[in-house]
Amino acid sequence: MRRAVADFAAAHRLGTEVCVALSGGPDSLALTAAAVGAGLDVTALVVDHGLQPGSAQVAVTAADAAVALGARVEVLPVRVGRRGGLEAAARDARYAALDGARDGRPVLLGHTADDQAETVLLGLARGSGARSIAGMRAWKEPWGRPFLGVRRHQTLGACTELGLAPHHDPHNRDPRFTRVRLRSEVLPLLEDVLHGGAVEALCRTAEGVRADNEALDGWASRVLAEAGRGDSLAIGPLRDAPPAVRMRALRSWLLDIGATEPTHRVISSVAGLLDAAATADRTQIAVGGDPGVRRVVVRSGETLTVRLTAR
Amino acid sequence: MRRAVADFAAAHRLGTEVCVALSGGPDSLALTAAAVGAGLDVTALVVDHGLQPGSAQVAVTAADAAVALGARVEVLPVRVGRRGGLEAAARDARYAALDGARDGRPVLLGHTADDQAETVLLGLARGSGARSIAGMRAWKEPWGRPFLGVRRHQTLGACTELGLAPHHDPHNRDPRFTRVRLRSEVLPLLEDVLHGGAVEALCRTAEGVRADNEALDGWASRVLAEAGRGDSLAIGPLRDAPPAVRMRALRSWLLDIGATEPTHRVISSVAGLLDAAATADRTQIAVGGDPGVRRVVVRSGETLTVRLTAR
Repeated sequence: MRRAVADFAAAHRLGTEVCVALSGGPDSLALTAAAVGAGLDVTALVVDHGLQPGSAQVAVTAADAAVALGARVEVLPVRVGRRGGLEAAARDARYAALDGARDGRPVLLGHTADDQAETVLLGLARGSGARSIAGMRAWKEPWGRPFLGVRRHQTLGACTELGLAPHHDPHNRDPRFTRVRLRSEVLPLLEDVLHGGAVEALCRTAEGVRADNEALDGWASRVLAEAGRGDSLAIGPLRDAPPAVRMRALRSWLLDIGATEPTHRVISSVAGLLDAAATADRTQIAVGGDPGVRRVVVRSGETLTVRLTAR
Repeated sequence: MRRAVADFAAAHRLGTEVCVALSGGPDSLALTAAAVGAGLDVTALVVDHGLQPGSAQVAVTAADAAVALGARVEVLPVRVGRRGGLEAAARDARYAALDGARDGRPVLLGHTADDQAETVLLGLARGSGARSIAGMRAWKEPWGRPFLGVRRHQTLGACTELGLAPHHDPHNRDPRFTRVRLRSEVLPLLEDVLHGGAVEALCRTAEGVRADNEALDGWASRVLAEAGRGDSLAIGPLRDAPPAVRMRALRSWLLDIGATEPTHRVISSVAGLLDAAATADRTQIAVGGDPGVRRVVVRSGETLTVRLTAR
């Protein structure tokens, strides 16, 4: 694991000063130990979400462990709102606090191969194509995940070996969370049915699909640039692109013009406007956006334009 | 279901004469009924694999049902070899028999959305990237799958409604087959954990990933054409392509030069030759192929070439 962190730091030229997001759980505790062991100058950032009784004590215990391992520590108490549900609000508050405290340094996160596999399964469940099964990226400045190739049982083993007593968040065992049931029921069954290797296979799939996405997103943005971007779009370059690229370019354009995350159905309807035969029936498509404004995509001749009207 | 077949036949311009691959199971029996109901001139092709006692009787019963539904029938007894395992050998023999009997007509296959979801899960398990989770194609001449949007319980329901008594292949319940356990254990658990919609989500994923694959394969073949194809390949166009496209182009080239299905590891090693720094250590990679010949990919200057030597 020390090697995983050292290789990661070298590959992404992180320098010697890094932060580690430390929850006190086995993954982030093992990551803190590995980062110190890899010779990095580590500051552990411990976020106290204040959501469970005793959370301040959990934070202090984690901070003490980090100090004993040879890291510096900051405890960051946050207030979690309710926007988008509790889990999403907690995540937003956590990332904002980490970003506010990192002071130019990268932040290492303890996500393991098991987390990645769960993320891919969750994405499959959503069924919104390659975008949803690409999993988490190993590096997106300033966030780094050196443990995506490490299994959870390895981080647990490392904690035992080092005599560390990680915190086990009761949320991680609560079967009301879909992710918990994927972890505790679906993945073990898949491992059994496939005679092992399910987590690794899901991670390999994520890696391949992520590379595919990057290539296709690049292509789509070139098509979009050629079509003119902005409020009015030339149809030709979109029509010449293969469907996967056309759909990505249209999605990106709809986001540009202020539509909220467009569904597959909305993008398909807009794509339908490119088809000469179809436009006889239907020449405009309502797309989402902020509630005060009605946003309609219209085809006129060889362009798509967006029309806004106050509701 | 009749509508699904009629729409499918119209979309792919199948004409009025079609064959249906009829096993006697609920999916293909419902498909035969729907195809006749859609006004097509249907010939049911019943393959008798001769693998289970009573298989001839199963074939005759299926044939009788098809005739009663208003189809013509041919029973095709085949001999199943052992190459590549029993399942693969049975499939090869079946498709060869269907192809031999179709006489210019398309062959409709009874695969449902449930089969597609199982195929995606199997592909995920293999973990070889987007190629393995793209599922089955709805139409690849002469093979058509009009029921990929139909659920298995619908085909069963149709059989009941029409008073048909489908054959239930005992292989479909044998938990020694991975596919059977995915169907009977993993998918129901996923449906429960995700509160429904798992099959549909897996099918949507397959559809999106298939479109992505088509776009990327097209791009890769343009890169390969630019690099010269044949036994010697210019490095520049490959290096300029994004990794997902480069890997696809190299895979396709390795197949062209006679390597057996190259693994991700082999393709990555060959891709490593494009990296100037790496080639100091390693300038040639052995790739698979027929056993009498040693096939080595070599970099010299700005080209990759393949060298064959007898073993």
